[in-house]
Amino acid sequence: MKYSVAQAIEILDRTPSVCTTLLSGLSDDWVMNNEGPETFSPFDVIGHLIHGEKTDWAARAKMILEFGNTKTFVPWDRFAQYEESNGKSLSQLLDEFARVRKENMDWFKSLRLTESDLDKTGIHPKLGEVTLRNLLSTWVVHDLTHIAQITRVMAKQYTENLGPWPEFFRILSF
Amino acid sequence: MKYSVAQAIEILDRTPSVCTTLLSGLSDDWVMNNEGPETFSPFDVIGHLIHGEKTDWAARAKMILEFGNTKTFVPWDRFAQYEESNGKSLSQLLDEFARVRKENMDWFKSLRLTESDLDKTGIHPKLGEVTLRNLLSTWVVHDLTHIAQITRVMAKQYTENLGPWPEFFRILSF
Repeated sequence: MKYSVAQAIEILDRTPSVCTTLLSGLSDDWVMNNEGPETFSPFDVIGHLIHGEKTDWAARAKMILEFGNTKTFVPWDRFAQYEESNGKSLSQLLDEFARVRKENMDWFKSLRLTESDLDKTGIHPKLGEVTLRNLLSTWVVHDLTHIAQITRVMAKQYTENLGPWPEFFRILSF
Repeated sequence: MKYSVAQAIEILDRTPSVCTTLLSGLSDDWVMNNEGPETFSPFDVIGHLIHGEKTDWAARAKMILEFGNTKTFVPWDRFAQYEESNGKSLSQLLDEFARVRKENMDWFKSLRLTESDLDKTGIHPKLGEVTLRNLLSTWVVHDLTHIAQITRVMAKQYTENLGPWPEFFRILSF
């Protein structure tokens, strides 16, 4: 499946609604537990997605379009949400994610990118040269894999209740 | 996290809406591709979830409550949906899943199960003796891990566009 702006937008536009439908109103036991030290709870993931909207995807795309390989992306602080989400409710975070994503989507749709724009390159601090197409595809995959993570983390909370069933759920040992 | 009927219902009630929010109106490229031979596309997963509602979770719970260890569960046909979903649209499947899940939830909520009901046992054709608590917990975990699967399968469709980024996404090689 080749990258297309239209098909990417199908996913990016809906991720906040997916997160809200999945998490809104759940007990803290479902949303505040994680998979162990330095792993994310569903609550942490929403903060992480907000941080990405504010500091990463749009900022990096702008850097590629304006500066190409002459500037290096600012590294993503994967743990910024531990501080930024502090004191906020999940409901507040879900609303904030929807708002910042919407702002980025309005900007992204206004770009009307061409195939040659997608070939433009920038410098990732660890991965080196990447294209705008790589970056924008990763934005989509990052959404999808974090939804996968949220549901996997939630599923793991019930492992002790499953009796002999975990052998049918390879994903629980991921 | 111990099994509780109320917390299980929080998940089971919303899974059809989560699937609809996640998949409704997407391009076929997102919903009809899978991870390789004998794996499920998102379209297949919805058919599989419908089959579970019609033949597995409620039927097995009733068997435990009525017959205990004197009957063995009917094996789940993991590939039944290849035939049953044939000719249907994803939109039809999503509506059907919502309908059959709602029926089962109405029944499930009417049971008013006690802790001693949850300790009752039945016989799984491969796993042997399981409790009603095991079965009902697996119903929840099955929902969550299939949402994880759907989003992982979708994410994998974009692997070729990511340039060097897959090394940050361990889940893409699951």
